[in-house]
Parts: sequence; C-alpha cells; structure tokens
Amino acid sequence: MNLKCSTIVLAAALLGGISAHAQTAPLEDFKPSTLNQPGQEYPQVNSQGYARFRILAPDAQKVVVSLGLGGTRGGTPLAKVTDSLWMGTTAGPMEEGFHYYHVTIDGGVFNDPGTSNFYGSTRWESGIEIPAHDQEFYALKNVQHGNVQQVLFPSKSTNTSRRAFVYTPPGYDKDLAKRYPVFYLQHGWGEDETAWSNQGHANLIMDNLIAEGKCKPFIIVMTYGMTNEIKFGGLRNFSITPFQTVLIDELIPYIDANFRTIADQPHRAMGGLSMGGMETKTITLARPDVFSHYALLSGGLYAPDDIKDKSKVKLIFLSCGSFERPDGVKNAAAALKAAGFNAVSYVSENTRHEFQTWRRSLHELAPLLFKD
Amino acid sequence: MNLKCSTIVLAAALLGGISAHAQTAPLEDFKPSTLNQPGQEYPQVNSQGYARFRILAPDAQKVVVSLGLGGTRGGTPLAKVTDSLWMGTTAGPMEEGFHYYHVTIDGGVFNDPGTSNFYGSTRWESGIEIPAHDQEFYALKNVQHGNVQQVLFPSKSTNTSRRAFVYTPPGYDKDLAKRYPVFYLQHGWGEDETAWSNQGHANLIMDNLIAEGKCKPFIIVMTYGMTNEIKFGGLRNFSITPFQTVLIDELIPYIDANFRTIADQPHRAMGGLSMGGMETKTITLARPDVFSHYALLSGGLYAPDDIKDKSKVKLIFLSCGSFERPDGVKNAAAALKAAGFNAVSYVSENTRHEFQTWRRSLHELAPLLFKD
Repeated sequence: MNLKCSTIVLAAALLGGISAHAQTAPLEDFKPSTLNQPGQEYPQVNSQGYARFRILAPDAQKVVVSLGLGGTRGGTPLAKVTDSLWMGTTAGPMEEGFHYYHVTIDGGVFNDPGTSNFYGSTRWESGIEIPAHDQEFYALKNVQHGNVQQVLFPSKSTNTSRRAFVYTPPGYDKDLAKRYPVFYLQHGWGEDETAWSNQGHANLIMDNLIAEGKCKPFIIVMTYGMTNEIKFGGLRNFSITPFQTVLIDELIPYIDANFRTIADQPHRAMGGLSMGGMETKTITLARPDVFSHYALLSGGLYAPDDIKDKSKVKLIFLSCGSFERPDGVKNAAAALKAAGFNAVSYVSENTRHEFQTWRRSLHELAPLLFKD
Repeated sequence: MNLKCSTIVLAAALLGGISAHAQTAPLEDFKPSTLNQPGQEYPQVNSQGYARFRILAPDAQKVVVSLGLGGTRGGTPLAKVTDSLWMGTTAGPMEEGFHYYHVTIDGGVFNDPGTSNFYGSTRWESGIEIPAHDQEFYALKNVQHGNVQQVLFPSKSTNTSRRAFVYTPPGYDKDLAKRYPVFYLQHGWGEDETAWSNQGHANLIMDNLIAEGKCKPFIIVMTYGMTNEIKFGGLRNFSITPFQTVLIDELIPYIDANFRTIADQPHRAMGGLSMGGMETKTITLARPDVFSHYALLSGGLYAPDDIKDKSKVKLIFLSCGSFERPDGVKNAAAALKAAGFNAVSYVSENTRHEFQTWRRSLHELAPLLFKD
C-alpha cells in the first residue's frame, strides 16, 4: 500500500466512515472496465477488484447499483458528488470475472449507459469484467481465429426459423476436405444463444487452445434452450420435450447437412451450464445414441446408475465453482470413475455460479473432447 | 375510425386537450414493437404508426422519450399514470421503419428496458420498429437462409485483431467449388459493423431476394469504418487513410484468403450509408483497380469528372430518402448517365436519413450487382 492510500485510509478512519467490509480504502488505480462501450470512462475497476460506478442523473433522488459483494444482490448505493453525477465504489474487491448488474434510478431498473449489455435473467443486463489472474486464456490474441456464424435453421416443431451460433475453428475454410466433431453447448436460465460467445468468450478460449496445440479443432453449436413455459417462469413446469425436439430432430440434421461434420455419435458432445446442464443430462440419458461426451457445468451430476450402456459414453465432465458445491462434483466423478467411466471433475477456485466458473470449465473440458 | 375512437376524440375535444399534431386520437390497436426484448409489452406501436411508451420509475420527477415526429428530437414527454408507471404516446404517426431513441429520467440518459439496443450515435441506443407497408422484403421467412459470420482479422496497421461480419449466401457451404463476388458495405457515423445486420436486416433482404431469384448470390462484408479521430468528434478532421489501409491492405486479402471469393476488380463492389458513402466515394476513386461497382446511400454523389477511367466502372448507384435531397441524387445519376456511365438513382418515399431508406436502397441495389 502506498502513502497516498494510507493517507486516505487514515482520513476515512478519522471520519468514522469505514464499514466492516472496507477496512482499507481501495487503491486509486481504477481503469475503465474492458466491457465499457467505446469511449466510456465508467464503470471502472482497480487492481484489487473493486468496482466503481458513475451515473449521470441530475435530478434523481436515489441511485443504487445492484452489484454487491459475495454474489449477493445487496448492491452498492451511489452518492451525489456533483450537481449531476452519482458515484460509488463496491465495499470490497469483487470476485474475478464477469458479473451482470443493473442500476435502480428512483425505483426504476435501467442499464448503466457506460457499459455493454449481455442477455441474462431474461433481459439485456449491464456487464462488468473484474480482471482475473488467469484472463490470458480467454484474451483476444494475435493467433489464427475461428469464426462465429449466425445460422437460421428451419424448425417445424415450433413453426419458426430459429437462431444458432456456430463456432468453426481456424482453418475450417481452408482445407475443404476436412470434417470435424461437434460440441452442442447450452447457456443457462434467462440467457440465450449469445451468452457463450459474449459472456463466455468460447471462441477465444478455443482459438487460444488450438493455437497452443492443446485441443483438437472442433465445431461448437450454441442455440436457445428455453423453448417452453420456463421462459419467464421458474423451472417447476419444465418439460424437456420441445427443446429436445428442436435439438435432435431439427438442429443436428441442419448442422450435419450444412457444415463439414463427422456426423456420428462418437464425434458428438453435449454440455451446458446451469439449466443447460440439466438439459444436457436429460437429453444425453434419453438419447445415448446421439452423444458420446457429456459435460455439466454447475448443472447437476450423473450417478453411475443413470447410464444404461457404459460402452457408449466416452467422457463425463462435471464442474462448478468452489463457492458452489465442489464436493458434490468431486464425489460424483469419483463414483463414476469407480464404476469404470472416464469421468473428470473440475473446481474453479474462488468463483461461484457465474461465467468465470464456466469459462474455466470450458478451458479444462475442451482438451478432453474427441481425443481419439 | 370506429365508434370507440370517435368517442375518445370527442372527450378529448371537450377537455380542450388536442394539440395541432394530434387532431384525432390514435386507434387503440397497439401491439408490442417487434424489437422488444422477449416478453416485454412496451414500447408499442399501432396500425397508424403511433408509438406508445411505458417506463417504470416510481420516484422519478420527469421522464421524456427522445423520439418525436418528423425526425426531430423534440421527444415525447411521459406522464405518471400510476404510482410507478409513466406513459406517453407520440403526437402523431411516426415514419415507417427503424428509429433509434433513448429515455431521459430526471436528466440522465438511459435506454428503454423494454426494447433491444442497437449501436448508433457511438452508443447502444434503444430501437423501435414502425411496421412499414413494404416490410415483407426484410421479413424472416421460411426460405433458405445465408449465415452471418463474425471474423476476427489481423490488422498490422492498427496492431489489433479487428472484427468484420461476413454474409455468405444460402448454399455457400454446399457447393464447395463455387466462388462468389464480394460487396464491401459500410455503416454510418456513430454506428459499427453490427448495424447492417441488426438494424438493416441485410442478410434477410439478401435471403429473400435470392429465394425469389431476383439477385445473384454474393458475399457481403461489413466492418468498422471509424478507425480514427472521427470516432467521438465530428467529421471535420477526417482522414481516410487509416480505414483505407485496413480495408484494402488487410481485410480484402483476408477475405480473399479465407472465403471462396472471385478475387478480382470486376467482382468487387463497395457501398455505404451516410459516412460510409463518403468513405466509399473516397476509396473507390483512389483505388479504381480494386472495385467496379459503387453505391452511395444517403452518402454523397459522384460527378462524371470524378472518375478518370470510365471503363473500370460497371455500376454507380445513388440513393436517399424523399425527405433528404432526392433531386441531388436524381440529377447526379442523370449527369452520369449522360456521360456514359451505368448509373442508377433510387429515392425511398416518405423516409429520411434513417434505416428504412437504406434497407430499401439495398433491396434496389442488390439485383443490379454483378449482373454479368
């Protein structure tokens, strides 16, 4: 801690303004969050992971940012610092990685005009990025990049053209004789098919792994998994049927017809985060003839008895953040291993039910997929 | 007009509440705008083109929507209708098509949480769609769809990986021997490479034209054109050099290396809207060896003397909205024709410097591109 900072702490202590959470003042090395809209100075983060917000609202009575410590929604109240600006800093360092948030202005919920929006909680929310010690693995680097394509595929069961995003690895458009395995990767509740690229950086994680020779090139397909009444309600009345129909009967045939896939069960994986893990578990167990690699990211567990034909399963990957239920993941993988499955568990340190857990999970999982 | 509506007009007249703009009350057939976030009821539009807004802000003092009549920014003030909700309707029908807007809450500028965001004015703005009489040509239909791919291409001149979106027409991934012409299509000031897909529906316009056999399949490439100080200032200090370098020396070689293009001048077009038209004019004139088809959409004019070698130009397309300067466009095209150029002008009826003009312009232009 430098002198300037100590002085601030002392001044704050004298004023009696230190909360239980903020026993030291944050270092004053705040920089704009990497997710800010072009040219926007706020929100900012410092080297310790504190987040600082600034909102222009000259005549507002009350401004609160929903982001608080420890994954709670306690939030951070802003104070009026000029005639028009409200500012506030989190009471302590935030956990590493991506966080959704919003701003309550006089009781109405809005997005922070300084930052970009990400689809979560069934709405476009503000996002902020707390730089992580391991952020290099999803950084945009000077390597060969794959593409992320928006495809619109016909769906008779829902009578719509539905959207999917398809990651094709570097070189896909060069060697036109080569065919690739496919990983179907699902988002969580309230998110959509944009989440794994926008929040998750799935494409950059793959580009970097492939550039380092750590991962076989494969295709990733991401589509919308909330096809029924779970959309704006809870998960109580969830039925897998509509989504399973879209995925198995409509999307997979479309992808196999329009991309250079290896169109068989050994070269097809399914995974998902949170609700997407629940969908993955249900669909892989119902259709063992379709997928051979299964991945649940903070999204449930398999027990050995769940699986009827062990010979059809090449990999089971289970993960979560250390602030979730890591023992559940570890114990389930151990039980699967004891029963003869190729099962792997991964626990993301110091993260919870958020995208940093899932970025890391994909980074651990991808090298294990389609190894032979 | 039905009885219910007449009654409302009468009641309003008795109350003396009719403004010069609103001599009749709007028809009460409001529906959610097609751009709304999933499940959101507001904003709404009616069959006449009125827009109605509803904002939750219980303790706000003043709420104004920036969208007003006639392309002005006079805006629409909302009134508090319950303890928590503010509502308001435009003073008359809006022009057809897409409009950007935002909401001012107690002096701060925010987006409407009900609708989706679109990048314009160097920020993500709210958008609303007033259904147009000709909206079928950019509707999502049950036809074969092309894909829109995000590519990250290396740029030495800016020392970054830059983003472009590439539309590949239906069938691109089927017949791997076929090669395609390429149209480089630019956005306007304050927008970015997402605009032509998100606001413009360029991909759907192409899909529909191709399905009807009205247009040759070609590739469209859209990248960010604000590479220098014009970004957050005006256009005064504009230099074309940084963008021209990215486009000609970096993006075009990347596209030709990674997509199945016909990589020669006769099969390469450039066009742009507004500032993108200015860029198109400058670059096509500086590099007649690169492009053969030129298109300026509400983005300036060519004079016959601008062009040194007439034999290198296959098409010049000039367009604008009827509320812009249609005579300029018509006269310039006539002068070019008189001088022996294949010049075409198009005027979009009852639209101004907005995306409906440019959607229609692309719809008119595409069938003229790469005809032989």
